[in-house]
Amino acid sequence: MKKSLGRKTIAYPLPVYLVGSYDENGQANIMTAAWGGVVCSEPAALGVSVRASRLTHSSILKNKAFTISFPSAKLVKAVDFAGLVSGSNYDKFEKCSLKAIKSDLVAAPYVAQCPVVAELSLVNRFDLGSHTLFIGQVEDVKADEEVLGPNGLEAEKIDPLIYFPSQKYFRLGDFAGQAFSIGLSRK
Amino acid sequence: MKKSLGRKTIAYPLPVYLVGSYDENGQANIMTAAWGGVVCSEPAALGVSVRASRLTHSSILKNKAFTISFPSAKLVKAVDFAGLVSGSNYDKFEKCSLKAIKSDLVAAPYVAQCPVVAELSLVNRFDLGSHTLFIGQVEDVKADEEVLGPNGLEAEKIDPLIYFPSQKYFRLGDFAGQAFSIGLSRK
Repeated sequence: MKKSLGRKTIAYPLPVYLVGSYDENGQANIMTAAWGGVVCSEPAALGVSVRASRLTHSSILKNKAFTISFPSAKLVKAVDFAGLVSGSNYDKFEKCSLKAIKSDLVAAPYVAQCPVVAELSLVNRFDLGSHTLFIGQVEDVKADEEVLGPNGLEAEKIDPLIYFPSQKYFRLGDFAGQAFSIGLSRK
Repeated sequence: MKKSLGRKTIAYPLPVYLVGSYDENGQANIMTAAWGGVVCSEPAALGVSVRASRLTHSSILKNKAFTISFPSAKLVKAVDFAGLVSGSNYDKFEKCSLKAIKSDLVAAPYVAQCPVVAELSLVNRFDLGSHTLFIGQVEDVKADEEVLGPNGLEAEKIDPLIYFPSQKYFRLGDFAGQAFSIGLSRK
């Protein structure tokens, strides 16, 4: 018998995205977001939900572009800070000792220190209530050579950061199985 | 200098959702999905993207409802199987030795063996290309008593399953920091 928790925004695991954009003055900014994910395969697209009050909201609309930088666990303090304050009050890149790289493909900056980044063109917005869901078409994904192996990205080399709705950050744990494979025995 | 990987659907961590629905014959079905997340706070809403060819796609549209059951790591074989085959050919609940519980709130079943489940009313659909993004308003989240602590869900008791785009499942790892707290020192 399960216990009712009510109409909560509970889902897990949640990602930890650093959403990069330029504000109206051309200042590079990042915002930490846990509400987003892959939304489409063809065209490849990611979605991220942002409150209308956030500086990032107007920045994405103005530039019709954003990036998502995927932080590793060692950046946890910077990540948390970037979710606590507004880019209207702080130069978050400077405060976090992070370097902004201007994308060649879209009008948005990404975080040099994140091993993997996605550059996105805004193709849709859906106003869902408190949050606007921005749909970004993937123009490119870029990764540091050090996190790549013969089959692409290697989680163990990335040491990704994970968010859990108990307001806790976690690292990735043990390998639990190969997808599209471990379940075949049930056929 | 980062290396270009192209227009790929790369993001991490990815969730592992068991999306529950009833087909046109009233048969309970689940589909494994990694493309989804929280999309709005007020109203509380989750999104999940499903290909039009999937049985789950027509089932959600017919019933205007779905559930998301959040599997623990010990269910990894069942989870993988439910992503490999169609509910048109298999009774996935039976094949996976899982029990379908009919939601009292929406016309969809959830998985008894998953410690946390969300019951969702379909409030929007966005056709984005290969995938339709279904937006479900949260009618309730339910959890087993065993995974609850004084502050709600406890990740360590849940042992959640995580998907990484290298087609690997992982368990959750070490605690990496308290959110809305560990970054305060940067202020």
